[in-house]
Parts: sequence; structure tokens; C-alpha cells
Amino acid sequence: MHKSRLGTLIIDCLTDDLQREVAFWSAALGCTEQPYDEPESQNYIKLQTDSTQPTIEVQKVDHPSRVHLDIETDNIQAEVERLEKLGAKKVAKVRDWWVMEAPSGHRFCVVRPQRPDFEEGANVWDDD
Amino acid sequence: MHKSRLGTLIIDCLTDDLQREVAFWSAALGCTEQPYDEPESQNYIKLQTDSTQPTIEVQKVDHPSRVHLDIETDNIQAEVERLEKLGAKKVAKVRDWWVMEAPSGHRFCVVRPQRPDFEEGANVWDDD
Repeated sequence: MHKSRLGTLIIDCLTDDLQREVAFWSAALGCTEQPYDEPESQNYIKLQTDSTQPTIEVQKVDHPSRVHLDIETDNIQAEVERLEKLGAKKVAKVRDWWVMEAPSGHRFCVVRPQRPDFEEGANVWDDD
Repeated sequence: MHKSRLGTLIIDCLTDDLQREVAFWSAALGCTEQPYDEPESQNYIKLQTDSTQPTIEVQKVDHPSRVHLDIETDNIQAEVERLEKLGAKKVAKVRDWWVMEAPSGHRFCVVRPQRPDFEEGANVWDDD
């Protein structure tokens, strides 16, 4: 048995000025910027959302701007296998998460739990 | 005074088979498919999400697959003006909503309220 759900919206920005994009998106969506808590996270900034809502991050990237989804899970390997059975393909493992591609062509990531109410709110899947 | 917030994630799919993409995304995100309620909505299908969460739609499109955000508001004109002051540009008016482009290059839409708890949950903006 494992759990998963939509964890985060990542607003990927092809930009030289991440702070400008964060200023726009935080004001547009009515979220304040979360203070940095990890020194290595120079390339993305989290926006404060209500703890019951999906997390939102604004990220500096080298590819064209897009939005991608992260699926959060308490068992990355089991969730990747579940999604492969649904037709998704593995693209790359990055540190402890997986980048996958949906049949519709969208890239998304499978990551560890991000939202504080993950335990109560996530979907529960029976593993084979 | 008007209100707005993140309303909907639209998973735009360049596909000949919308039902296949809906099957993947509903299973991936653990949402069931909402029955059609509008006969004209042949090009998109809503997924059932908890009423406190952003709405999710899977849409058939003619451009490359992407995810776009809808901002829901009780005053489209006032919200479009607020977003223009933040640096967004109007792209096109479609029926009663606006397509806009963020400084980061992302297209997004400004639409009427979609989520049932809009009144309690949306951000409140003072209009000039």
C-alpha cells in the first residue's frame, strides 16, 4: 500500500530574473514568497499557500517556460511503477525524485511528500 | 473591491484521443471523471476534485501539450486591469474570459468563479 496525490505546481520560467517572475506570480495568485530555507535552492522560490492547497513554486529553467506538476508520494518506487502501468515513461532520476512523461507528452515529477496534510489527504493505492 | 485566486489547472493535450488522456490523468492524480453537464464541452473533461481544491480539466488542443492556469474572479475586467499593472498582457477575449500572458511567457486565463468555496477562499483586492 502506498499513497500519492498532486503535490506541487511548478511554474518553470525561462528567465534571467527569477525575482521578477516571483514578484509577478506571487501578486497574481495572491501568495507571499516563502523565505529561503535551503541554501542550495537558488533556482526556485516557493510561494506561501494555505496548508490544504497544492504547493506552488516558481523555478528558473533553461528550457521554454511551462508549468509542470509534481505528484507527491510516500513511496517513489511504487508510485513510478503504478504510473508506468498507466502508460507514463521514466525520463530521468534526479537526486531522490523521478522525472516522467505522460502519454499526453507532459513532463511531471514524482517526489516525496511536500504538503503538510499529505497523510490525511492523499489517495491510497494497493500495491501488487 | 474584487476577489480572485487560482481556480483551475488545465492539462492541455495535443491528442486525437481525449478519453485516453483523461484516463491517464484521472488515474495518475486519483480523481474520477466528472460527468458532462454542458453539451458544448466536447473538447474538455473536468476531473472530480475535493471542493476545497483547485479544479482540474483535461483539454484537447491543437498546440503542443502544456499545463495552463486559470485565475478565477468575480470581476473579470477589474482582475485583468490588476494583472496588466503587474506586467501581464492581454492576448485574446474568448466568450466571457480573457487569455493573458505573464512576463514569464506563460499563457493563462482570467475566468469567472469555478470553485464552490470562492467567496470564502479568494483573495480580496482593493480597486483603484
